[in-house]
Amino acid sequence: MKVIVGGVYQTKFGELWDKNLTDLIFEAGSQALADARIKPKQIDLVVVGNKLGGKMQGQDHLASLTTELLGIEAPGVRVEAACASGGMAVHQAIQAIRAGEAERVLVIGAEKMTDATNGEVGAALMGAASNQERRAGLSFVGLYALMARAYMEKYGAKREDLVRVGVKNHEHASLNPKAQFQFKVSLEQAKNSQMVAEPLGLFDCSPITDGAAAVVLLKQNGVRVKRQVEILASQMATDSLGLTERDSLVEIRATKWAAKRAYREAGIETSEVDLAEVHDCFSIAEILAVEDLGFSKKGDGFKELKKGRFGLKGELPVNLSGGLKACGHPVGATGVKQIVEIVTQLRGEAGDRQAKKGRVGLAHNVGGTGGTATVHILRKI
Amino acid sequence: MKVIVGGVYQTKFGELWDKNLTDLIFEAGSQALADARIKPKQIDLVVVGNKLGGKMQGQDHLASLTTELLGIEAPGVRVEAACASGGMAVHQAIQAIRAGEAERVLVIGAEKMTDATNGEVGAALMGAASNQERRAGLSFVGLYALMARAYMEKYGAKREDLVRVGVKNHEHASLNPKAQFQFKVSLEQAKNSQMVAEPLGLFDCSPITDGAAAVVLLKQNGVRVKRQVEILASQMATDSLGLTERDSLVEIRATKWAAKRAYREAGIETSEVDLAEVHDCFSIAEILAVEDLGFSKKGDGFKELKKGRFGLKGELPVNLSGGLKACGHPVGATGVKQIVEIVTQLRGEAGDRQAKKGRVGLAHNVGGTGGTATVHILRKI
Repeated sequence: MKVIVGGVYQTKFGELWDKNLTDLIFEAGSQALADARIKPKQIDLVVVGNKLGGKMQGQDHLASLTTELLGIEAPGVRVEAACASGGMAVHQAIQAIRAGEAERVLVIGAEKMTDATNGEVGAALMGAASNQERRAGLSFVGLYALMARAYMEKYGAKREDLVRVGVKNHEHASLNPKAQFQFKVSLEQAKNSQMVAEPLGLFDCSPITDGAAAVVLLKQNGVRVKRQVEILASQMATDSLGLTERDSLVEIRATKWAAKRAYREAGIETSEVDLAEVHDCFSIAEILAVEDLGFSKKGDGFKELKKGRFGLKGELPVNLSGGLKACGHPVGATGVKQIVEIVTQLRGEAGDRQAKKGRVGLAHNVGGTGGTATVHILRKI
Repeated sequence: MKVIVGGVYQTKFGELWDKNLTDLIFEAGSQALADARIKPKQIDLVVVGNKLGGKMQGQDHLASLTTELLGIEAPGVRVEAACASGGMAVHQAIQAIRAGEAERVLVIGAEKMTDATNGEVGAALMGAASNQERRAGLSFVGLYALMARAYMEKYGAKREDLVRVGVKNHEHASLNPKAQFQFKVSLEQAKNSQMVAEPLGLFDCSPITDGAAAVVLLKQNGVRVKRQVEILASQMATDSLGLTERDSLVEIRATKWAAKRAYREAGIETSEVDLAEVHDCFSIAEILAVEDLGFSKKGDGFKELKKGRFGLKGELPVNLSGGLKACGHPVGATGVKQIVEIVTQLRGEAGDRQAKKGRVGLAHNVGGTGGTATVHILRKI
């Protein structure tokens, strides 16, 4: 049985002072329904991905809020898997269709992060890490800085090899009207930017963002729909919460496990992937991702990035949306936004940032430092 | 394809000052696995139900924490649906088995609530209600008090008709070693107890509780297991988040919708249910539940309660565990604990509180004031 994408929508990402969490959910949900030409009452399940609503807005129970808001008469659930909450929401929706529980599912990922101080957000985000890591006073950028250090030492990557991720993703974001940062940065600017946690500087780090994204998933009913995209694979994997329990700091095992199962489920080779949205919460994360997803050999990711392989005009464009780095990272929305971007690309509707070829796309979402990973593979029908 | 319950476990519920959220998850998870005689590595999915971890313990990403803690090498997800998070976690697990994604799933519901002041917990719980309700300064007991008032006015119930719920559930809890309050209260005591929100007094309200419960769900593999219980139905429904959008204050529509679908799925009549665990967060909630689940006609619930129909020796025992009122209400754990109690009863292992007959049991979990409801029906094989 096939699951297809009926409609997609992404709100503008950024510091949206005039919008609250409810506004974002409403805009994304209603517009995705409009894109799918489906009425709220036709939806038979809602899945919401969100991490911080309970803490930041004092608002849990978001599935019920969403159905009330959109006039949907169907059950709903909220799922949370740290920064992979969005990817996990998509996964749960696909699972519900496969279980025969639903045929038309609305998935919404949303996060409102700018209503708190950066310190509060930083502390809240550490909810995705382990108790030991919190007690040790580590921050998220600090955890990824440890991974970056280990990688640089093992494979001889330099700081400029890392910042190239940000330079590339800003270039893509400059072409994306929905992106938080619609501007380019030069390698020099990025390299000389303020240090956040050695060796990760300002342009190695994704920002704090408000935003929402939504996807309508449908059980294939045999009717050929224009611009149709199907889900080839939906997989998730879980690893230890803390870095202390990992064998290696230079790979994210959950990504490898989820990817392996996803390629098997899709029945495709890694080489058949035409474009990907990967989880670049920090520059090192994108380099690990392209390796752990099998696009590059371990230790080669930064070299192939330098050669331009992952740019808009490269062989395998990565993060054409601008990624988490430059499109923005509203945590619960990110995994859903990745699906929106892949679908937009496969439909050929990505405007100035349209990939040359686009038949198969992959979306990769990570929670914490790799405690959770989801991998989705989509194909244009 | 059948889904069966392989193992169950409930921690002691109460003010557990010497245990943190991690301890509770570990105890419930490892003991449920032991009961099922299944090794951690045989589990292929983990689902965690929790509402307040992000806010109370600064800990989200609980599925990853759980797999690390128990040595499970399988993916996991956390689901949240306010006080129905536990029932929703069970539902998601069953769905995953039906979708073919998993065959041996560990479901854990856990909540650690006593590390904050009552005021903080009260505010956090309002995350399950609507923005308007929060802004109006309403508390959860206040919202249910509105429903109680409406019910009393419409059906002529008196305050003593409500407190009988607490009296009955305390009597059951007095026989349950896992209950938070192992003591009886008289009707006089209950009636004269301190008012919390008119007309709901102390013995109309469930307490703040620490605790966890776990269930191992298995795809039926044809092997007949001793003490086997099967899932006949697993349904959920969603209604508006706030009371303001409801047509009636004297019913919980989400319960009616979920129950109707559950009876249909199970292929049974309401009259075939031998015992039930229902969501008695406040006394009025149990009265609405027995009516909305179809056990009593609308407006008759409190009368049949008075006649003893829902007591241990009644025709249809309700909340033999002591319910949320007296067994305790660790919010994310409650829906899972209800399944544990039903299974314990159907296996005939409930000791002093064992129901006389027990072939079919029903578990009913509510989020907020009815924004979400889950209904599970189980049968002894």
